[in-house]
Amino acid sequence: MNESNIQLISTISDDNKLTLALKNIEMPQPADDEVVVRIEAAPLNPSDLGVMFSGADMSTAVQSGTEQNPVITADVPAKAMPALKTRVGKATSVGNEGAGTVVAAGSSAAAQALIGKTVAVIGGGTYRKYHSVNVQSCLVLKEETTAKEGASSFVNPLTALAMVETMRAEGHKAIIHAAAASNLGQMLNRICMADGIDLINIVRKPEQEKLLTDMGAKYVVNSSSDTFLDDLTAAIIETGATIAFDPIGGGQLTSDILNCMEVAAARDTKEYSVYGSDTFKQVYIYGALNRGPITLNRNFGFAWGVNGFLLFNALGKLGTDTVMAMRKRVANEITTTFASHYTDEVSLTEALQLSSIKTYAKQATGEKYLITPQK
Amino acid sequence: MNESNIQLISTISDDNKLTLALKNIEMPQPADDEVVVRIEAAPLNPSDLGVMFSGADMSTAVQSGTEQNPVITADVPAKAMPALKTRVGKATSVGNEGAGTVVAAGSSAAAQALIGKTVAVIGGGTYRKYHSVNVQSCLVLKEETTAKEGASSFVNPLTALAMVETMRAEGHKAIIHAAAASNLGQMLNRICMADGIDLINIVRKPEQEKLLTDMGAKYVVNSSSDTFLDDLTAAIIETGATIAFDPIGGGQLTSDILNCMEVAAARDTKEYSVYGSDTFKQVYIYGALNRGPITLNRNFGFAWGVNGFLLFNALGKLGTDTVMAMRKRVANEITTTFASHYTDEVSLTEALQLSSIKTYAKQATGEKYLITPQK
Repeated sequence: MNESNIQLISTISDDNKLTLALKNIEMPQPADDEVVVRIEAAPLNPSDLGVMFSGADMSTAVQSGTEQNPVITADVPAKAMPALKTRVGKATSVGNEGAGTVVAAGSSAAAQALIGKTVAVIGGGTYRKYHSVNVQSCLVLKEETTAKEGASSFVNPLTALAMVETMRAEGHKAIIHAAAASNLGQMLNRICMADGIDLINIVRKPEQEKLLTDMGAKYVVNSSSDTFLDDLTAAIIETGATIAFDPIGGGQLTSDILNCMEVAAARDTKEYSVYGSDTFKQVYIYGALNRGPITLNRNFGFAWGVNGFLLFNALGKLGTDTVMAMRKRVANEITTTFASHYTDEVSLTEALQLSSIKTYAKQATGEKYLITPQK
Repeated sequence: MNESNIQLISTISDDNKLTLALKNIEMPQPADDEVVVRIEAAPLNPSDLGVMFSGADMSTAVQSGTEQNPVITADVPAKAMPALKTRVGKATSVGNEGAGTVVAAGSSAAAQALIGKTVAVIGGGTYRKYHSVNVQSCLVLKEETTAKEGASSFVNPLTALAMVETMRAEGHKAIIHAAAASNLGQMLNRICMADGIDLINIVRKPEQEKLLTDMGAKYVVNSSSDTFLDDLTAAIIETGATIAFDPIGGGQLTSDILNCMEVAAARDTKEYSVYGSDTFKQVYIYGALNRGPITLNRNFGFAWGVNGFLLFNALGKLGTDTVMAMRKRVANEITTTFASHYTDEVSLTEALQLSSIKTYAKQATGEKYLITPQK
């Protein structure tokens, strides 16, 4: 291999500036248990944007550099700087996952076995042309699966499956999902349909209702509707859902979900208790689409939990056997259950145009782009 | 026994009225495994007031009846009625716990063994002269312990001990407690001092700071101080506290605690993560001294939980052996570690005077009264 390697780098300087740029980097030399993957497709999700922008005010973004080597700079508000102090001055790589072809491998049998295979990879900054990753971080795709099809094999698929496994492990029997028309939400809907699990999808637009209903979703409620709380309560009564996953956070939705669960639980209560029902009600917040305050209006007694939910922590709790089974299912069903849809496909250079950056910064409902580093 | 029995009863009618009154009831006949306790002292806590008032607007309270048999009525706001529907028209007994002398017993050996003993009892409405309770709900006090000393042997002592045991079971090493100058807070402080556990006491008045400091508390921070967040963060850094118990709920304190924990955790973090620190941060909300919205301003990453905390659920999780050891410790240390202090002592008749009721309704920081039903 004598090609050049390029990587998208995000840096914050101590004078409160964010810089995004493409850097020439060394071609990686794989360690014994590593492989070099030519990254052919990598998704751009809200979680990638979180790393890329890291609290900068993207309305201040400007473009410099050249057409082929654009540079974006933006101001970081002073109040965001303390939390970023371990990041200042460090070239931070971006891109949580991706897929491509194994073009070189270390000496271990496991690494050698991957040569020539199309693999999905997790971790370490996939917005680059060539990436060296541990074999444990690779998922071998089926022969007929393309890198584009497999680019989002980890974050969304494993998160959706982790929700279902968490529901099972914690003894709940049906799930509520907010912002349910997202790629992740569509996956979760397909998993629940396949596994016979009742899923209540919360969306906020009629076209999202239609999208999910057309996919076969049985319970879809619209949070913009005047009858939202009644609709949600009715669906909870029908399904017995006592666990919810919410990527929004800010606002009152978590509170609304808990209160509707409590109304549903109290229906079966014969004895009044000032402490509310005995039914344990759980909301996991797995994103920050709304970074504003989470407001809990407590009419839901004392048997409740609201927790942050992060994929890697959830996988740790579920254990190796469950996680291996989840990965296998993803590889087998990546073009069906776990198929992703992208708003646009862009090269690394195109991703760093000011117009692209402004679009990404504005998106707030889980829109998803595909970066193709080889273009 | 040929004495009369009297009980304090709280009733909500379907025309939105709360009525509090004393009723003549039958002298209880104990079942095989029950004893009849002459209740000599019973505490009046915020949790008892919750049952007694059940959402009524106590600013509308009026007194009728006679001097010896006062009746209090108050309006229940229409919006509170749906949650109370299982309570409407039912004579609800009040009083979570108390203590007194066993004056009769059922046929079982366990019941017979209690005759003549001074016992603390839990459950079932202790604001009455004679109460029949299961032997499992009795805690035999030491011979030299009076009923007044033992009146609060269950709720506060077991809650304070359950906090410490929950800390241990969940792998934390120091505790934060809010509204820490309460009876419960003073108990928790004494337990933590005895057991060598670091406890950060949050109070809101200088005299509360002094009270706890004079008791030997090492960490006392004042939430009314301009330097509160810095003081709390410094104490967290020193102690490593990652679990908190808060009886207030409404407002921003839960959020402040989580954010200070995160600042403390982030100090040791070398790699920046957009998801925050890996340190798991937990706040348990065990009361509703402020019934307003709980506002969470999320700068504390994704490794966090906020949960309702209810004594009986917590005991269920801790298991029988731990709970039996906790009860034994309470009986042994009821006049030292678990001593309660009461603002006033009142008879059942005095408790139902309008002036008393108005005072109880206004108290919001865990003041505590002692009811003496035999007077």
